[in-house]
Amino acid sequence: MAKLPLADWHPGLSVDCVIFGFHNGALKVLLLQMQGMDKWALPGGFVRKAEDVDEAAVRVLEERTGLKEIFLEQYRLFGQAGRSTTEHARVLHQNGWLDEEDLAWFQQRFVSAGYYALVEYSKVSAPRADYFSSACEWWPLERLPDLMLDHSSLLDAALAALRLHLNHKPVGLSLLPEQFTMPELQQLYEAILGKSLDRRNFQRRMLGYGILCRTGERRRGGAHKAPWLYEFEEEAYEQALQSGLGSTW
Amino acid sequence: MAKLPLADWHPGLSVDCVIFGFHNGALKVLLLQMQGMDKWALPGGFVRKAEDVDEAAVRVLEERTGLKEIFLEQYRLFGQAGRSTTEHARVLHQNGWLDEEDLAWFQQRFVSAGYYALVEYSKVSAPRADYFSSACEWWPLERLPDLMLDHSSLLDAALAALRLHLNHKPVGLSLLPEQFTMPELQQLYEAILGKSLDRRNFQRRMLGYGILCRTGERRRGGAHKAPWLYEFEEEAYEQALQSGLGSTW
Repeated sequence: MAKLPLADWHPGLSVDCVIFGFHNGALKVLLLQMQGMDKWALPGGFVRKAEDVDEAAVRVLEERTGLKEIFLEQYRLFGQAGRSTTEHARVLHQNGWLDEEDLAWFQQRFVSAGYYALVEYSKVSAPRADYFSSACEWWPLERLPDLMLDHSSLLDAALAALRLHLNHKPVGLSLLPEQFTMPELQQLYEAILGKSLDRRNFQRRMLGYGILCRTGERRRGGAHKAPWLYEFEEEAYEQALQSGLGSTW
Repeated sequence: MAKLPLADWHPGLSVDCVIFGFHNGALKVLLLQMQGMDKWALPGGFVRKAEDVDEAAVRVLEERTGLKEIFLEQYRLFGQAGRSTTEHARVLHQNGWLDEEDLAWFQQRFVSAGYYALVEYSKVSAPRADYFSSACEWWPLERLPDLMLDHSSLLDAALAALRLHLNHKPVGLSLLPEQFTMPELQQLYEAILGKSLDRRNFQRRMLGYGILCRTGERRRGGAHKAPWLYEFEEEAYEQALQSGLGSTW
C-alpha cells in the first residue's frame, strides 16, 4: 500500500511538470500512464511542508528523468474549483494502490503549480514511472493520448508559455551540441513554435540578440555549401536569461 | 472576534494582489496597514474551497477598490517553505483580532498566488481596509513603507511581470482617456518602466503594433505644436491581448 506520511505534506497542493524533450528536430512530451487506467498524466507530485514548491518540481523532474540542473520554469497556478476530479483516485483505491486514508487525501480539492522544462531527451536514458503509474513514455505533441484531469489544458498553457518565452529569453543551451549551425538553431525554434520561419529573418534576429559567436569553422559533409558553426556566448546568454533579449523595452 | 468558518477555506493557500494605480503620469501601489503594526501589506485573502483561485483575487480587488472587470493577471505562485512567518498573527492575536482557532489557521504554512492589476486610480473613490487592517492607501513606488512577510519580493516580481507584459501585450485601455496623444501614451509606458524612452522610437514601435487609430483631430491648448489625438482600435487591441503584439515570433 502507498501509505503516505500525510502530516508531512502541504494539503491541497500539487506540482505538475510539462517536460518537453527535443531531439533530432522534434518536440515530444513525457507522460505517465496511471495504474489500471487508459488515461495518461503529466509527471507530478505533492509538496512537503518543509519544501519550497520549486524544490518539489525539481524533485519530480529528477525522479522521472534522472536529470538535475535543468531549466525549469513555473508558469501558472491552476486553481479552478472543479479541476480535481477523483475518478483516478477511485480506480487506484479499487485496485489496491490507495488505502482509505490515502483515498481521503486524494479526494481533497487540489490546486496545482505548473512547471515546464525543456530537455535534450537523448540524455534521459530511461524515464521512470512513479508508484501510481505503469508506464512513462515520450509522446509526440501532434499525437497525444487521452490525459486525465485538466492535464491537457496544463500542457497547452505550458506550450504557450514556452513560445512566449522565446520572445524575451534565449533557449538552446544544453539542447543543442556545443557547436551548431544556424539551420540547426532554426530547427529548434520551429519545433517549439510549430511553424516554419523565414531563414534570413531568423538569422538577422538571432545575430541581433548578441548571444551567438561564430567559431570561424564550417560544418563539413552536407550536400549544400558548408554552413558556419556557432556557439553561445555563455556570459551574454546568462545575462539575457536574467534581463531579457535585446528587443525588450 | 474574526471567527472564520475555517472548514470553508482551502488550507494553506492565499492570494495577494499588487494593485498598481496610474494617474497623472505616476504609478502607485495600494497597501494596507496591519492592525497594531507599523508594517504594511499587499491586499490579499484566503480562497474558498468552492471558489476558483482567480475568483478569490477578483473578490479581493473588488472588496478593496470597488472595481470590477479590471485586467488582473496571475504572475506567480510564491511557495518558499520559510515565507509565511507568523509575527503578524501573534500581534493580531495579542490585540484581540484573532481567537485561538483562527491563530492556528494563520500559523499554517501558506503558499500565495500573486496577481497584479493596473487601474486608473482616480476611479477608486475610497480604497477600503479589511478587517485586519487599520488603513488602505496608495503609495508611490519610489517611497514605500516597510512591508510584512515577503511582500516586498511579491511587489518587485509583479513590477517585473508588468514590464515584461509591455513587450508582448498592449496596455492603456481603461487607463488613458478615450482619446489621447502619443506623449500621454509614452508617459504611461515610462511610468511603468521607470525610465525615459526615445520619442521617435516609441512612436514608430507603437504605430507598428497596429492597435492605434489617429482620429484626425489634435489636442489644442498646449504651448507646443498641437499633437494628434489617437484612440485604441478595440478589435485589434483585444486580438493583441489574445495572441500577442506584432514583434513576437
